[in-house]
Amino acid sequence: MGLKVYVDRMSQPSRAVLIFCKVNGIEFDEVKIDISKGQQRSPEYAEINPMKNVPAIVDGRFKLFESHAILVYLACAFPGVAEHWYPGDLSRRAKIDSVLHWHHSSLRSGAAPYVFNAKLAPLFGLRVNPHVAVQAKTLLIDSLAKIETIWLKGKGRFLLGSSQPSIADLSLVCEIMQLELLDEEDRNQILGPHKKVQQWIEDTRHATRPHFDEMHSVLFKVKEKLAKMSAEGGTAKTHAGNKNQMLSKM
Amino acid sequence: MGLKVYVDRMSQPSRAVLIFCKVNGIEFDEVKIDISKGQQRSPEYAEINPMKNVPAIVDGRFKLFESHAILVYLACAFPGVAEHWYPGDLSRRAKIDSVLHWHHSSLRSGAAPYVFNAKLAPLFGLRVNPHVAVQAKTLLIDSLAKIETIWLKGKGRFLLGSSQPSIADLSLVCEIMQLELLDEEDRNQILGPHKKVQQWIEDTRHATRPHFDEMHSVLFKVKEKLAKMSAEGGTAKTHAGNKNQMLSKM
Repeated sequence: MGLKVYVDRMSQPSRAVLIFCKVNGIEFDEVKIDISKGQQRSPEYAEINPMKNVPAIVDGRFKLFESHAILVYLACAFPGVAEHWYPGDLSRRAKIDSVLHWHHSSLRSGAAPYVFNAKLAPLFGLRVNPHVAVQAKTLLIDSLAKIETIWLKGKGRFLLGSSQPSIADLSLVCEIMQLELLDEEDRNQILGPHKKVQQWIEDTRHATRPHFDEMHSVLFKVKEKLAKMSAEGGTAKTHAGNKNQMLSKM
Repeated sequence: MGLKVYVDRMSQPSRAVLIFCKVNGIEFDEVKIDISKGQQRSPEYAEINPMKNVPAIVDGRFKLFESHAILVYLACAFPGVAEHWYPGDLSRRAKIDSVLHWHHSSLRSGAAPYVFNAKLAPLFGLRVNPHVAVQAKTLLIDSLAKIETIWLKGKGRFLLGSSQPSIADLSLVCEIMQLELLDEEDRNQILGPHKKVQQWIEDTRHATRPHFDEMHSVLFKVKEKLAKMSAEGGTAKTHAGNKNQMLSKM
């Protein structure tokens, strides 16, 4: 039994795991868990990941969830993975762990609720919590400023001053890519001041081509649909037929 | 230059790092960063941890922050650490990483804002966000249920069915200990249904004695003061002199 990767490409940590496998030539079967259909809540999937989210992996008889733990495991378990993704050196590894743990309560806690409250909820006529939206945007902008001034402080093009990407670069950039769903003006306002962050996204994309673009293509398709919906009416009230289908892709 | 550990014992991840060092006989200098005095925001401390929070360590010339990354580093860097804290086996290690990453967006995201909104803010006459309080309590209870039914599912007394504690047990139990600051009735309502969790807290405490009790003593002192304040007036309006001093300990 080979490696199975349970994902939905609309989920940013799912894309990070998929890109990592592709870039490193790890053979795997991609099993789509369609979150728009609630497949992550099925009894069958709960046997694989009782937390009922994506991504998860099954490697032989070994089951694992939480994308950062998966990336670390894959980097260590598959001998073909290049050293720079998760170096054997204890200090360098600890620094990457530090970024990965920081991510949860900062960038992720800002980006995901902001995209939902600023773009998706209004578009689909769902209840927006303005307090949450404001708090999330503040956290998101603060997190990007910290990436710019602290994690990207070094001479290298990647986090921690490295000249090649690690699993932390991949995870954080996939998170930021979710901002593509925002209105162009809003996204530019948020990312605009962070020149190093913008360059780093491009560098990470470039270092993981063509898989980066392939795995993000679904995000850009949804972005196009959202832009069309926005242009047509401002809310999705006139698109009842599309509502569940679209929301299920977020 | 030996190991320096920058902490405030009122911070739950600080206590986890301190207990870990003590239990494993790691020699270190404890440097208090008094968050009640804003010492974490000083320019001197920003040189050690630019994220301006605790804990952080300096080991020789190596600087590190984020408590989970610190625990992993210490477990790997100090040869005297018993295997069970962070086993060398890749699969067992990956499972512990999975718990550590899960912690951020679940237990921690529930417990910390709930304790603040339910107990500390009203007591000090600070603005409470009822929506955040309700959301945080729901997440906290859901996280405890998941620990009970998923992470403590196995036969062992500790997480992942282990017979001895790992760094994940230590981190999560120190987080839950922060609930001691709640009113007794509220705490019992939250923890009461989770019998395995209660036993696990006791088992972790027992496995790390006497350091567990020593490092938590400041928490119990603050708890006593809070109880006294609650009994005297319901809010801290009549305790203006204590307000900054007390809040600074949360």
